[in-house]
Amino acid sequence: MLQKIPSLNQLVHELSRLPGIGPKTAQRLAYHLLRSQDEYVQSLRDALKGVKEKIKECPVCFSFTEEEDMCHFCKDVMRSADSLCVVEDPADIERIESSGSFRGRYHVLHGAISPLDGVSPSDLKIQALLDRLEPNPDGTRQVQEVILALDADLEGDTTVLYLAKILKDMNIKTSRIAHGVPIGGDIDYIDYRTLGRAIENRIIV
Amino acid sequence: MLQKIPSLNQLVHELSRLPGIGPKTAQRLAYHLLRSQDEYVQSLRDALKGVKEKIKECPVCFSFTEEEDMCHFCKDVMRSADSLCVVEDPADIERIESSGSFRGRYHVLHGAISPLDGVSPSDLKIQALLDRLEPNPDGTRQVQEVILALDADLEGDTTVLYLAKILKDMNIKTSRIAHGVPIGGDIDYIDYRTLGRAIENRIIV
Repeated sequence: MLQKIPSLNQLVHELSRLPGIGPKTAQRLAYHLLRSQDEYVQSLRDALKGVKEKIKECPVCFSFTEEEDMCHFCKDVMRSADSLCVVEDPADIERIESSGSFRGRYHVLHGAISPLDGVSPSDLKIQALLDRLEPNPDGTRQVQEVILALDADLEGDTTVLYLAKILKDMNIKTSRIAHGVPIGGDIDYIDYRTLGRAIENRIIV
Repeated sequence: MLQKIPSLNQLVHELSRLPGIGPKTAQRLAYHLLRSQDEYVQSLRDALKGVKEKIKECPVCFSFTEEEDMCHFCKDVMRSADSLCVVEDPADIERIESSGSFRGRYHVLHGAISPLDGVSPSDLKIQALLDRLEPNPDGTRQVQEVILALDADLEGDTTVLYLAKILKDMNIKTSRIAHGVPIGGDIDYIDYRTLGRAIENRIIV
């Protein structure tokens, strides 16, 4: 920043704090915003205010919602309450919804177990998940299957192992989403760990 | 957008209108903003407000400034008023300043001539440039040299040709910045047009 324009430098600073926005991109965006219509900057400011003021966590599944009581997934009677899909982040729900392969309910952990980052099970919405899986007074249980749709990294795997053990003790059918060669993927370009997993998890046809 | 969170969708929409921010990046940023501290979002909103309210164009060189009268380049008596560097955009000034090779004054055209985009000379700050080059009543002229530091594209070249003709008629020494192989550039990887220009503009050593 060589030009002495404090408010421009301030905007560059704030923008460069966003993930994936380096100093050069922040500068380019700041100049763009400076030159764009007042109406656009105002609507961006309003949108920023909106997300912070209107959106909160659903008290049942902990995804984001603007609804007063609970999110539209938890309210939707057309969705089966028999299966529960556990994800790390609210954004993961959109991916799963866009696949069209799941019509049950969700539960957002808000992270994954990561001893290196100091994230322990108590930092996640795991107790709330177990509470949702408590049997009814008559001994029956609404949720028949828990699908773990966590990331295929160390933290996701750790969380899968941790949850699988607890859920097995509770006698709940538990599955995790398959890992393998992506659709359209060329085997030449797949890393050996994914390919190894794809071979281990091969499907009899 | 499959989740029914209107204010989140609104923020994704506004962010994706920024240059270089596609729908996926906009979504990632929106989720990040949703999860970040209220203080950060507020300071980003304040910074956006700041650039629109505080920054205006310098009435002399048309770069951006927060100063009341003129920008600090135009005010700086340590900078020579003998040479004038003409750039397309205010952001270009920062690049030139960081090179440390120029200590004169600037003039921002706010674009380049582009018949295809409907940008004619009258849409640019060209008349204001010519006004700055008017001789004093005694026939002398403050500006001794005009350096054209415009982009090395069709629009920049067109503008250079246009200005060079006018300035030649006014008997003002005019130069344009050199085009050639970038420092550290490997000749193997330079496109043939740049290499052609570098050979044409070779320097006797």
